[in-house]
Amino acid sequence: MDDVAIIGVGQSVFSRKCEVNIRELCFDAFKEAMEDINIENKDIDASITCSAPEYDKQRTPSGLISEYLELTPKPAFYVETVCSSSTTGLRVAWSLIKSGLHKVVAVIGFQKMSELSSREAAEVMGRGADIMWESPFGITMPGGYALFARAHMATYGTTEEQLAKIRVKNASYGAKNPKATYRKELTLQDIMNSAPITSPLKMYDACANADGSSCIILASADVAKSVCKTPIWVAGMGAATDTMTMSGRKSLTGLACAQDAAHQAYEMAGVTPRDIDVAEVHDCFTISELLAYEDLGFAEPGKGVQLIEEKQTYADGSIPVNVDGGLLSKGHPIGATGGSQVRTIVRQLRGEASEAQVKDAETGLIHNIGGVGQYGNVIILRR
Amino acid sequence: MDDVAIIGVGQSVFSRKCEVNIRELCFDAFKEAMEDINIENKDIDASITCSAPEYDKQRTPSGLISEYLELTPKPAFYVETVCSSSTTGLRVAWSLIKSGLHKVVAVIGFQKMSELSSREAAEVMGRGADIMWESPFGITMPGGYALFARAHMATYGTTEEQLAKIRVKNASYGAKNPKATYRKELTLQDIMNSAPITSPLKMYDACANADGSSCIILASADVAKSVCKTPIWVAGMGAATDTMTMSGRKSLTGLACAQDAAHQAYEMAGVTPRDIDVAEVHDCFTISELLAYEDLGFAEPGKGVQLIEEKQTYADGSIPVNVDGGLLSKGHPIGATGGSQVRTIVRQLRGEASEAQVKDAETGLIHNIGGVGQYGNVIILRR
Repeated sequence: MDDVAIIGVGQSVFSRKCEVNIRELCFDAFKEAMEDINIENKDIDASITCSAPEYDKQRTPSGLISEYLELTPKPAFYVETVCSSSTTGLRVAWSLIKSGLHKVVAVIGFQKMSELSSREAAEVMGRGADIMWESPFGITMPGGYALFARAHMATYGTTEEQLAKIRVKNASYGAKNPKATYRKELTLQDIMNSAPITSPLKMYDACANADGSSCIILASADVAKSVCKTPIWVAGMGAATDTMTMSGRKSLTGLACAQDAAHQAYEMAGVTPRDIDVAEVHDCFTISELLAYEDLGFAEPGKGVQLIEEKQTYADGSIPVNVDGGLLSKGHPIGATGGSQVRTIVRQLRGEASEAQVKDAETGLIHNIGGVGQYGNVIILRR
Repeated sequence: MDDVAIIGVGQSVFSRKCEVNIRELCFDAFKEAMEDINIENKDIDASITCSAPEYDKQRTPSGLISEYLELTPKPAFYVETVCSSSTTGLRVAWSLIKSGLHKVVAVIGFQKMSELSSREAAEVMGRGADIMWESPFGITMPGGYALFARAHMATYGTTEEQLAKIRVKNASYGAKNPKATYRKELTLQDIMNSAPITSPLKMYDACANADGSSCIILASADVAKSVCKTPIWVAGMGAATDTMTMSGRKSLTGLACAQDAAHQAYEMAGVTPRDIDVAEVHDCFTISELLAYEDLGFAEPGKGVQLIEEKQTYADGSIPVNVDGGLLSKGHPIGATGGSQVRTIVRQLRGEASEAQVKDAETGLIHNIGGVGQYGNVIILRR
């Protein structure tokens, strides 16, 4: 199934507040993605724009952005699964190409969260849970993930210090990433002393709202081979959902949607967790990265903490994870996040990640989650 | 390319204000679509939810709706091109199936516009144009289509009476459609005497905001043949965009995005406009239906008025158009509209449209537009 490739990736600088409007923000990522590939805008057959729509005054931004990037009159549309929107966009782009409808498709993710105040943003984000039965009673994003953290602690004895070690790792890589919002190393003490948000999660256990954009350009095999030096192949994809309501979940010690999606992706790619050389996982909170270790099969349920205790998820460990700083350091501009994860893995597989290159990386994985474990996407890429 | 079929279609009653929440509204359409086909919810491999997100408090409704319809843990996501969202959903569903990723996909369109007051809705709709350069200066939906009407009148001598005759036709069919918002016949005088909105367009030249849902279920050929008596095949599809800014348009006497999409769809289906037995076109305003006659090649540019003057677009004419009442009578619940158009054509091709059946209809066309001629989708279906 290795016949759709990623030929270009790009990302804007992620920041707490960018000084440009959304079309200009998207241009930053698009421009980087178009570098070093031998195609023009007119060769792009369709564009998919991905974001969470609640942050912008502009309705239906896909048309606005497609006009600004000079992709008109090609089809443009909008795809959304909140925080995993741009990997859902990748999945749709793959289908458009694999079906024979298009040859080259651009997936543009963005979010300008600074359009809303922190209070407005928190209110908007809360409405990502069921607004009739759950979010009015406190099931916000941090609230939901705090339930997972508490359940993991109660079941497996996981500690706050172990979670904090994940942030220490990611901060160490974020410090080296010129496109990250936070470029500061953090000590275990910094994290343990940070202010509580929803116990047991503290400020440094959480990623931050950010502005940013990302872009992935995919192409059919024939085009990919002719326009690009190192196509990176989409080897496997999985996607699944869980209930929106937390009360509908069967377990709170793992994300069923991620487990399902991982299973599908491994099967499609014909690989096992042991074959993954480098991974980007959705660490919107430290607990989320720990759950990912287990949901992806990098560790048995309850044993994920060993990976971080033994530093196996550092760049020189057995399964390097989030060696670009993750959402925790990069920031999490919702619609742009998945595309940024894909960019990191593509650069790793091309051998271009000089700031934290994993040696001989040939197979990489992206794990991108929307909502509190509601939408799960897992993508496996191969050099 | 006849290997993806529509196996089920459904629609809620469209109304000015429904008394249920969005998940229950979607269930109405889903239930009808699942009738008479031999599949269960668990056989649906993915669901695509389509709406304009600005009308609901609930963020990311695809997950909520997928849970309520018992489609979890299958992938669910959101696709949007404003008023043409659900035909964009159909295009994406086709690709997911054609690519081999899925066998059965449901496309669920909905809008509950009554969540907003008329004033709020008008403000929200205005932001469908470029909010930096155009909508603050009056380029709203009616404003944009009024420019097209004026240009058509100036170029071809089209009159307000001729536009009104389109509404007379559509009202006559709307009166027979049990799922339409407006079920009243209208006279030419009624329309000519109605209050001006944006000259030359009057109240009865415009469709109304409505609440409603629609559902289309698509399947691969093997599944379609085994679970359904009369699969309706997707023979052709086209999609294109034009600039969001009206100032970027090359012409105001036709919609370039519809012309491009029609060209693609005819080519893919291997048919010409003469082969179309029945069509649903996007008559958000009377002028929009007139433009569609010409953009789809049913008439030469400037000659569309002859079709309505000669009643050729009535059910017994040479090219029946909107014989379910169109958006003008049904109402226009944004995300549900395209699916409702598809439902009408599917029922016509199955010979089930007893209220206004076109004799021996074998090939049908759907023309669905998002924004003021920004997104164009044309779909050709075949019995």
